[in-house]
Amino acid sequence: MKTIYTTLLCCCLGMMSLMAQQDKITLVIHGGAGTIRKQDMTPEREAAYHAKMEEALKAGYTILRNGGTSMDAVVETIKILEDSPLFNAGKGAVFTSEGKNELDAALMDGKTLKAGAVAGITTVKNPITAARAVMEHTEHVMLIGQGAEQFAREQNLTIVEPTYFHTPERASQIERIKEKERQNHNNKDQGAIPQDLRDYKFGTVGCVALDQYGNLVAGTSTGGMTNKKYGRVGDTPIIGAGTYADNASCAVSATGHGEFFIRYVVAYDIAALVKYAGKSVSEAGEEVLMRKLVAADGEGGVIILDKHGNLAMPFNSEGMYRGYIKADGKAHTFIYQNE
Amino acid sequence: MKTIYTTLLCCCLGMMSLMAQQDKITLVIHGGAGTIRKQDMTPEREAAYHAKMEEALKAGYTILRNGGTSMDAVVETIKILEDSPLFNAGKGAVFTSEGKNELDAALMDGKTLKAGAVAGITTVKNPITAARAVMEHTEHVMLIGQGAEQFAREQNLTIVEPTYFHTPERASQIERIKEKERQNHNNKDQGAIPQDLRDYKFGTVGCVALDQYGNLVAGTSTGGMTNKKYGRVGDTPIIGAGTYADNASCAVSATGHGEFFIRYVVAYDIAALVKYAGKSVSEAGEEVLMRKLVAADGEGGVIILDKHGNLAMPFNSEGMYRGYIKADGKAHTFIYQNE
Repeated sequence: MKTIYTTLLCCCLGMMSLMAQQDKITLVIHGGAGTIRKQDMTPEREAAYHAKMEEALKAGYTILRNGGTSMDAVVETIKILEDSPLFNAGKGAVFTSEGKNELDAALMDGKTLKAGAVAGITTVKNPITAARAVMEHTEHVMLIGQGAEQFAREQNLTIVEPTYFHTPERASQIERIKEKERQNHNNKDQGAIPQDLRDYKFGTVGCVALDQYGNLVAGTSTGGMTNKKYGRVGDTPIIGAGTYADNASCAVSATGHGEFFIRYVVAYDIAALVKYAGKSVSEAGEEVLMRKLVAADGEGGVIILDKHGNLAMPFNSEGMYRGYIKADGKAHTFIYQNE
Repeated sequence: MKTIYTTLLCCCLGMMSLMAQQDKITLVIHGGAGTIRKQDMTPEREAAYHAKMEEALKAGYTILRNGGTSMDAVVETIKILEDSPLFNAGKGAVFTSEGKNELDAALMDGKTLKAGAVAGITTVKNPITAARAVMEHTEHVMLIGQGAEQFAREQNLTIVEPTYFHTPERASQIERIKEKERQNHNNKDQGAIPQDLRDYKFGTVGCVALDQYGNLVAGTSTGGMTNKKYGRVGDTPIIGAGTYADNASCAVSATGHGEFFIRYVVAYDIAALVKYAGKSVSEAGEEVLMRKLVAADGEGGVIILDKHGNLAMPFNSEGMYRGYIKADGKAHTFIYQNE
């Protein structure tokens, strides 16, 4: 009799614990930070961003709500953002100086601290799936260039022609930048690239999620920096810079001027402030984004999530596409400051 | 009269301060960690390692002693190690699965937090000079593959044929590993690669230095992992993983099983423990190398140096080529544990 009571009690406690965890499921996304200003937007374009972010959030939420893992939720959410030409990742990636689209992505599992990353790939439809395959099917963390593409083919990931990633908007953007460069060169005027062409210079998409098992995952994917040269790689595929997750501290995905995010080891610095300095995710994000990076003139933002479901979305640029969804299933999406 | 006294006093204080700083000049190197055992060595080979490490230490020391910067000292010291076939970096780099030598390097300046890194390059004689050029002559931190090589050519760095990096020892090593793989495949015996072939699997060279101006620099260079595939990149060129420097905490260069060093953000984790948890460089190194990495089965070592000249050289493998030199100009070099 005592055994039955004990079993029932354990069952009840187990269910209560699971329900408590289910209450904490959370998914946060970003779609890039930068010079995103209301006066440069049309209502239609704004609505398109909100709609796509809501679609991505709800896809991830459905996975989490149905008992799926934060790993599956993050990957599926990022695939939606990669497939949308609105964001600088996957289809819609910016062009390199040579007229190519070179893509980077990374994924990290907060439970095992396993991670996968790819850089400089041009033929994998969803770079985040390549990062996942590196994590799950190799002993490695980072594969680059043609080697990474060969691996992706062997893994039977969806391969596309490099032209799949082209969009008229990005093609026009790089042409106008090149024209401006030529003018500057001819005039010996090293003037800045016009404001409207700087949009998305540092765009990226990312997602962090907490599942009902208490596990955190972070993922990030990008087309990199417009007009980049020489095989430049930013912070996205660098574990600790653009992407990091540890159940013991937090999950972080960054977007911004990647060089600063690498030099300031932004994602891991936030985790270290949580772990070693006892900061909340909000305080840690504030410290790194609004103090250290502002002092260094490093523009961008991050999304942060801890195992209790506490989240923060700090950024020091004019805007950041961002949003979150929690157990109630209501998607919250934002673009500008003070929203 | 008062002004003269004040000037003289300032002069004296300035000189005393400079002398105090000169007393602190320190340079530390490593030449890779791994299964390095006395019973596998000949006295001649041991002597060759000690001699080359001493040569490298003294070259760096001479620069520091003559008022040079830690940046120059680190780069020149690493060039000597890269040029030696004894170490897995530059000439003497291990072979990839495809029979190539793919090299990675990184450099970070603790004063400015500027950094440069290259990955997957095959034609630059001294990869550390490419890392420096990225840091000093671009807005970027990381360049990879053919783009990085094009940049190096444009910078007039010394370019060599890919075969320059070949050495008979490494060629024999990869041939024997390939043969073992074929045997394992035929026998369906997935036995491990023999002990003697695992030597240097994770070799790397690195240097950290403190100059009389109180500035720290860290640099690392590697041929990567023997038999690596798919454009695998390890921790060496990842700022925060294999290389990190900040005057406010410490300079770190790592060597070991790179994937673990990336996942554990080893170099920056040590700096974070110094900065946020008030640990000494010895305590921080001990915590990360002997506890966190041992628990994760991540083999390797690091060299660490702070702005006071405190240094640590912890490793959890059987040996690590390592050494240091301080203001007295005496080179100390070691290979095994408990030396």
